[in-house]
Amino acid sequence: MIKHQNILDAAVKANQARGFHAQYPEHPKAYGEAAPVQGEAEFNNALRQPFKELLQTGEGHWGGDEVSPYTQEKLGITYPLFTADILVKNAQAAAAKWQHTDAGTRADILIESLEAVSGRFFAIAHATMHTSGQPFMMSFQASGPHANDRALEAIALGYQELSRYPSHLVWEKPMGKMSVKLDKQFKAIPKGIGLVIGCSTFPVWNSLPGIYANLIAGNPVIVKPHPGAILPIAIVVAAIQRTLQAHGQDPQLCQLAADTAAQPITRQLAEHPAIKLVDYTGGSAFGAYVESLAGKTVFTEKAGVNSVIIDSVADLDAVLQNLAFSVSLYSGQMCTAPQNIFISSAGVRNALTGETVSYGDFCQRFSDAVQSLVNNPKMGAGTLGAIQNKATLERAMGADKLGGTVLLAGGAVANEAYTNARSCAPSLIQVDGKDQQVFENELFGPLVLLVKTRDTADSLRLAKGLAEKHGAITCAAYSTDPAVKERIVEEMNSVFTPVSLNFTGPIWVNQHAAFSDFHVTGGNPAGNASFTNPDFITRRFVWVGNREVIN
Amino acid sequence: MIKHQNILDAAVKANQARGFHAQYPEHPKAYGEAAPVQGEAEFNNALRQPFKELLQTGEGHWGGDEVSPYTQEKLGITYPLFTADILVKNAQAAAAKWQHTDAGTRADILIESLEAVSGRFFAIAHATMHTSGQPFMMSFQASGPHANDRALEAIALGYQELSRYPSHLVWEKPMGKMSVKLDKQFKAIPKGIGLVIGCSTFPVWNSLPGIYANLIAGNPVIVKPHPGAILPIAIVVAAIQRTLQAHGQDPQLCQLAADTAAQPITRQLAEHPAIKLVDYTGGSAFGAYVESLAGKTVFTEKAGVNSVIIDSVADLDAVLQNLAFSVSLYSGQMCTAPQNIFISSAGVRNALTGETVSYGDFCQRFSDAVQSLVNNPKMGAGTLGAIQNKATLERAMGADKLGGTVLLAGGAVANEAYTNARSCAPSLIQVDGKDQQVFENELFGPLVLLVKTRDTADSLRLAKGLAEKHGAITCAAYSTDPAVKERIVEEMNSVFTPVSLNFTGPIWVNQHAAFSDFHVTGGNPAGNASFTNPDFITRRFVWVGNREVIN
Repeated sequence: MIKHQNILDAAVKANQARGFHAQYPEHPKAYGEAAPVQGEAEFNNALRQPFKELLQTGEGHWGGDEVSPYTQEKLGITYPLFTADILVKNAQAAAAKWQHTDAGTRADILIESLEAVSGRFFAIAHATMHTSGQPFMMSFQASGPHANDRALEAIALGYQELSRYPSHLVWEKPMGKMSVKLDKQFKAIPKGIGLVIGCSTFPVWNSLPGIYANLIAGNPVIVKPHPGAILPIAIVVAAIQRTLQAHGQDPQLCQLAADTAAQPITRQLAEHPAIKLVDYTGGSAFGAYVESLAGKTVFTEKAGVNSVIIDSVADLDAVLQNLAFSVSLYSGQMCTAPQNIFISSAGVRNALTGETVSYGDFCQRFSDAVQSLVNNPKMGAGTLGAIQNKATLERAMGADKLGGTVLLAGGAVANEAYTNARSCAPSLIQVDGKDQQVFENELFGPLVLLVKTRDTADSLRLAKGLAEKHGAITCAAYSTDPAVKERIVEEMNSVFTPVSLNFTGPIWVNQHAAFSDFHVTGGNPAGNASFTNPDFITRRFVWVGNREVIN
Repeated sequence: MIKHQNILDAAVKANQARGFHAQYPEHPKAYGEAAPVQGEAEFNNALRQPFKELLQTGEGHWGGDEVSPYTQEKLGITYPLFTADILVKNAQAAAAKWQHTDAGTRADILIESLEAVSGRFFAIAHATMHTSGQPFMMSFQASGPHANDRALEAIALGYQELSRYPSHLVWEKPMGKMSVKLDKQFKAIPKGIGLVIGCSTFPVWNSLPGIYANLIAGNPVIVKPHPGAILPIAIVVAAIQRTLQAHGQDPQLCQLAADTAAQPITRQLAEHPAIKLVDYTGGSAFGAYVESLAGKTVFTEKAGVNSVIIDSVADLDAVLQNLAFSVSLYSGQMCTAPQNIFISSAGVRNALTGETVSYGDFCQRFSDAVQSLVNNPKMGAGTLGAIQNKATLERAMGADKLGGTVLLAGGAVANEAYTNARSCAPSLIQVDGKDQQVFENELFGPLVLLVKTRDTADSLRLAKGLAEKHGAITCAAYSTDPAVKERIVEEMNSVFTPVSLNFTGPIWVNQHAAFSDFHVTGGNPAGNASFTNPDFITRRFVWVGNREVIN
């Protein structure tokens, strides 16, 4: 019986049953009264200092160039910088003991590390906010409890898969009057060192599944954050290292490989022959490079073009409010955010009123809903957050050059707490379905295309084609007609895209819940992996069976 | 409750427990008195005829150029030949109904097809013998019960994985005084059309796992045999097609893609954009090409260099007899056959006599054991079988040009039943461990290298290095010292090679039993896949989850 057996068992059960489960409550109040103040202080104390929490050896010099999207000021934190060879050497030295630690003990230590991480949730939240530009509540939830739950999901599935076969058994083959007996041993051998390449928008949430999947499978892991968003994951890595050390393991089983924009080391690491596994989140061009690396097991989440198909609705206002929030949340910088909303030129039937709303009226009312949200002083700035990257802002500001008709021009929204915040509300662009070149590529950030189609079948055809060609992580659809819903599900599923039907109220297509929703299916160009399906675990180790004759 | 629920449940249980299990008895007598005569007649009736059992449409012309390694005569059987486009079109037409058939029904129909195949075991055995050159008993067992059991293993694991998650459930997230409810649906979407590329030596055994893994996962499959060994798998494909048709499915879910050496279609098929999955057994050069195909999920078994490490033995004669059979069986044309036997220059301690046998004496006694086996009129020809391929014979006859010292020159062994049989007994070559260029590549066929090493550590170093660099499917080791055994297991497992320890008596390193032994680990250059680990199944479909708000 391990210390965290109950947490582990509940997670294994939840993975299988796929009902609601959360080990780490998403509400900040669940973490006590002192935690928020203490976490903020931890963050402030980290600024303009070398980051000394890591237990790593062999660094060359120190560097770091993070800038807060809220203040435009440098965080001034420096991190130890390592060569690829030093990181690999450290990982190799740490590997043997961990590999020979049983899966239950590994799971126990890893859950203990999640408990340690949960004690830092508020510091991580501030760090996430001031690197990614996420609004505070999202920073807290996405980098805190939601990320921890996805990590636990990976640990639990790993534990389950590693325990799948008996470690020893006697195999007896009857052969007439005699028999042959073999002692058989089954071992899950870890593949080798893993590299987890993070992104600037979700520096913790997108990295934790790969980190923990590697560790539970017995592999050392090197964590390569985006140079613009190091601090959030650095705090996590330090907590993991300290937990490993406290349990007699080498803390360098999990190392931070910080780098700077001027001297990147991602390719050196990815191409290092000792790196056997690569997890990647980010743009498609670099993702294609990672996928092309020979002799590596690669897990990617790249770009996608997410669609909304509007056929008919039960209550139009509820739909518009839900979608307005989905496209505004973190200014569309979520990989799950909708980009293209397909609306039939015949309009949208609203069951509540019995009216059919024209394409033009739908667009106008959607525009009103977005404006009402972003201009609400209690909601706007806290929903939009800030734009992580200047290029994203420039793209959003060029809405008028895309080729459609700008219905609503986004732009800065006042943020009382951060007057320098790089904020931007969504721009809404009307475009005809036949002008596919306008909307067929991912336009990351606060740009929403309102695409006028011939009918719902045309909407579906376009959404399906884009998912197949460019990838999609989500598809929202609204219809009151069971046959239409079934058709949309069938067609979008055939290009390996999940469908969220008739979302209204406090649940959004952007959200994928741990233990229940697969994040990315792995079947279309948006990525080749999935949080957390069985492949995500089983491809990180190799089953090997030994046999010995028993005389 | 499906018809074959008991067979399925027993197979699922056996896969998990990994003890001895055989659905299809390996002894020919288990199949009734009439079966052998009937099967031989079926084979003879098939000769010099067009093969008309298939239920496929759209062929162009007919062709075939199989030659019996036992008689050197053409079989004279022609098969319908199809273009890649026709095969793909037929597969696409067959896909939808099968995809929407539940996993239990699929499993039932597929097990029914195995039952039908079992009614053809003797015809398949003769067909295998006269294409691959296998001895009759191996032809019967490998292409019959053993292949069927590996197919059932894949069906059972597929059924288990496809049933892993609930198809529907209600997910309810508590949110203070209220909650959000979603209806969630989980679907395993098949990836698309599979291509299974067979080899000339094990035309059924190596193809059935991929065929059935594709089918249970919901994918249509195109079976591309080696042009030299079509008949055995053609009979199987026809039986599958007839079973599918009898159950209201499109028989072209499983198609034979025969071709000729003059007009091969393998690359056209493999590169066809509609082919999403490729299973391959064969040489490393073509295997590397298959693995390099972008956008395909690929499962390979290529070449390997298998080692035997002799440290010390309990009973030398028992060891020599066991190894002599392993290297002689089917003239070393098994991917699991040992090639390099590493023996310390300090000799081998024989616990039974207390003597230490020198390297030279060991080699001589091994040579005697091989000669005694192959020259035994009741054993020799029936163990060796015939050489499938002229190139294999030429390589074996060039033993004196390899660079070592020929201790025993192989060559033809009289076969009373087939005076024209292309037979060849193993050649034994002595070589020093430092002359690695002599033994480091796969020398497929009846060539055995007796490598003189500094000590067991040196033997292990060489065996490990070869497995890592060139791949290995098996490693046999003999030691009476627990510490040495542990060291060998640890080091060979670290290069993803299983170890068979102290095999004597009627069990050989060449044999991998269904439901228990993983065949190929997938972790070294001998192949990237494994019969049948979870990956072999789960990479053939994609989990997709849909959600709908419940108001």
